[in-house]
Amino acid sequence: MQNPSFKHLLGIEHLSCEEIELILQTTDSMKEITQRSIKKVPTLKGKTVINLFFEPSTRTKLSFEIAAKRLSADTIGFSSATSSLSKGENLLDTVKNCEAMLPDVIVIRHPCSGASHFVSQHINCSVINAGDGINQHPTQALLDIFTIKERINDLKGIKIAIIGDIKHSRVAHSDIMLFTKMGANVFVSGPGFLMNPFISVLGAKICDKIEDAICDADVIILLRIQKERFGNGVIPSEREYAMLYGINMNRIKSAKENVIVMHPGPVNWGVELSPDIMDYNNNIILDQVTNGVALRMALLYILSNQGERE
Amino acid sequence: MQNPSFKHLLGIEHLSCEEIELILQTTDSMKEITQRSIKKVPTLKGKTVINLFFEPSTRTKLSFEIAAKRLSADTIGFSSATSSLSKGENLLDTVKNCEAMLPDVIVIRHPCSGASHFVSQHINCSVINAGDGINQHPTQALLDIFTIKERINDLKGIKIAIIGDIKHSRVAHSDIMLFTKMGANVFVSGPGFLMNPFISVLGAKICDKIEDAICDADVIILLRIQKERFGNGVIPSEREYAMLYGINMNRIKSAKENVIVMHPGPVNWGVELSPDIMDYNNNIILDQVTNGVALRMALLYILSNQGERE
Amino acid sequence: MQNPSFKHLLGIEHLSCEEIELILQTTDSMKEITQRSIKKVPTLKGKTVINLFFEPSTRTKLSFEIAAKRLSADTIGFSSATSSLSKGENLLDTVKNCEAMLPDVIVIRHPCSGASHFVSQHINCSVINAGDGINQHPTQALLDIFTIKERINDLKGIKIAIIGDIKHSRVAHSDIMLFTKMGANVFVSGPGFLMNPFISVLGAKICDKIEDAICDADVIILLRIQKERFGNGVIPSEREYAMLYGINMNRIKSAKENVIVMHPGPVNWGVELSPDIMDYNNNIILDQVTNGVALRMALLYILSNQGERE
Repeated sequence: MQNPSFKHLLGIEHLSCEEIELILQTTDSMKEITQRSIKKVPTLKGKTVINLFFEPSTRTKLSFEIAAKRLSADTIGFSSATSSLSKGENLLDTVKNCEAMLPDVIVIRHPCSGASHFVSQHINCSVINAGDGINQHPTQALLDIFTIKERINDLKGIKIAIIGDIKHSRVAHSDIMLFTKMGANVFVSGPGFLMNPFISVLGAKICDKIEDAICDADVIILLRIQKERFGNGVIPSEREYAMLYGINMNRIKSAKENVIVMHPGPVNWGVELSPDIMDYNNNIILDQVTNGVALRMALLYILSNQGERE
Repeated sequence: MQNPSFKHLLGIEHLSCEEIELILQTTDSMKEITQRSIKKVPTLKGKTVINLFFEPSTRTKLSFEIAAKRLSADTIGFSSATSSLSKGENLLDTVKNCEAMLPDVIVIRHPCSGASHFVSQHINCSVINAGDGINQHPTQALLDIFTIKERINDLKGIKIAIIGDIKHSRVAHSDIMLFTKMGANVFVSGPGFLMNPFISVLGAKICDKIEDAICDADVIILLRIQKERFGNGVIPSEREYAMLYGINMNRIKSAKENVIVMHPGPVNWGVELSPDIMDYNNNIILDQVTNGVALRMALLYILSNQGERE
Repeated sequence: MQNPSFKHLLGIEHLSCEEIELILQTTDSMKEITQRSIKKVPTLKGKTVINLFFEPSTRTKLSFEIAAKRLSADTIGFSSATSSLSKGENLLDTVKNCEAMLPDVIVIRHPCSGASHFVSQHINCSVINAGDGINQHPTQALLDIFTIKERINDLKGIKIAIIGDIKHSRVAHSDIMLFTKMGANVFVSGPGFLMNPFISVLGAKICDKIEDAICDADVIILLRIQKERFGNGVIPSEREYAMLYGINMNRIKSAKENVIVMHPGPVNWGVELSPDIMDYNNNIILDQVTNGVALRMALLYILSNQGERE
């Protein structure tokens, strides 16, 4: 396997097209492993992965844990609720202490944008950003593109619509960077007060009307809307949001036939997505979850072997 | 080994006598493994067990985790406190996301009766009910019967008394169904307002007086009483409960000599059981815990191998 | 390897010099393992370690977990927050239930002094005290001495200063006992209301002035000060504490050249230690963390093999 130059996965901007290709190919091999009856290989036996989750998480944390175990790595979970962070320890000390226990990879989710980047500058082991504030969520973007490519092999020129709370979405930021890098045309839409007017810098086109984003789209990605955004006088209720920005079977008619519908989860059913989408043939939300494990196996594999080559 | 027809373990009612026999025999083999110096076999290497605990639990969760590890399965813990359930995700989505990570078995404890049954209808991997609301706790009943049979091989015609909060006890429901299926006579007693008048449908006889339940009993099973049942004017205090329904060395004199005393735990010492029972020779509460690990190993083994046979 | 006579590690007072020597030698071998690319040996495969943490903890819990995994033991985490301790179960029942699941070692941290000693009297498997109230923290003292000996091989006659909240520090208690046993001279200093006037019984000399403790010291150990000690009229603020008892580059000038600076963590930077110590060459706080994993591997190895020899 080709030797990638990256030691950490902090954001999409640092990845070359060759590195992305390597990650996606490796994910393909890993997915084959997860479909066996014995879903485990000894590849990372004796390697240690520490998962530092400073925010509540179900799927991303489980996904990384399962990924590590399927490669036979030792994985240590850590969530801020039951740790001595309640004693007021700062992030850098926590991470330096973890590093002193000689892990090979530290996976970190943190409510502050830039947290994983900051951490990577102060420690020697590999760091994977599992979501930092409203900045980026690069493993989500990578699993998204892997999942799209299972249906649409060549992304050049396809239209991808991203709908919802663009302003606060780390998923949107990573997705836009990755999709445009792969040659897709990305259109974003959502409530005005949740739009980031500078998002076009990343290569996305802002659509005032959601219909313009959806029209002829090959892929529609919905973003989770936080409950706390409602009741502020702009979007008074979930019902209002669903009517204006929610996606249902009727609305996707203006997109390409067989348009793919995706969501990073957890979905607020009845808000971002109407329940009639649950049974839609090209709702591939659970494929995203399945591929997430394989993608994280690929990254743990690539990064765990970096140290030795240096 | 014989091929059982069950894919899930949701409740006792679905088990045939042959399946129960298979489970108990397999538990016997597993118990032998747990008594070795090297308490581990590679049987389930490469299998994944996800433990979903939506209620606080010590012993059941630990028991399943240890059981999985002794069979070399990968086990992922999950408790609602540190997960994104705090983001309001619904049960079905949580479980479908877990399923998408391709586990072999999902173990679920949930405060709602019927939760594991509901879940099993929507996913393809095996589901084990680790306690659902006030409905059932089948692994407890199975370990209870295994533990009784270590002392009394043939259950036909023996008298088993179950004392306490029958109305809210998932343990009682599973126990009664299993014990009567094995030919035992089950007598229940407890405070009137905690009795379920329809419990006789399951085959148990209701005794208004606790003495009638205990008299000549071969086995006495105490049920945990929740603190919130007290102080309601019916049972004013723990002390009152202990006097009326608690078991002590004096009270068991009317039972068979060497009557077995059991409790699913955690015990409220001084309430359901007097401290003098702690040293009683036939208090086999900790045997229940030891056997619980072996029983869960047996179930994980049986269910993990179901998928491949289909 | 020599057969040690101890079955538990509860406190320093029970250890003979030969046993300490054995532990430190074994730690040395374990440290070598943790520095390999494949940091794992099959030594404790099939052994089970249960970690019972009744207090929040990051580093000690992680350290024990990683130690167990690097020896291929199965390790089950347990923290009071997500367990049925919320149902009011008592310590002895919790521990006896854990023992019934047949672990080889139980590691326990508990807010009550004497908890691990109490537990060890009621169960048959090995018990390691991972900190009990204000009593002892023996694994910390052992890793401290291992870390000191990497720099100063012979402890006889060296001067070790321990500064801070002596009264409430289980680390101080274990450290003083261990250091004096190894022939070091221990001097303690700190705010008067946080001094234990009886500490001299353990062999430490109390210095009213911090300068007397630091002067010519070979090693300075800082203790964490709890925030709740401030604002009581004696030490009004963190800033006051830092001025009076904090260590900075200027203050260590009166100690031996290249004096070693240590802290059990987590450090309150700017309180016990000035940030200029972060980059000090002989700040070996992170060495303590690294060695902590190796030391705990050594203890798990020694104690897990005790059962079979008996």
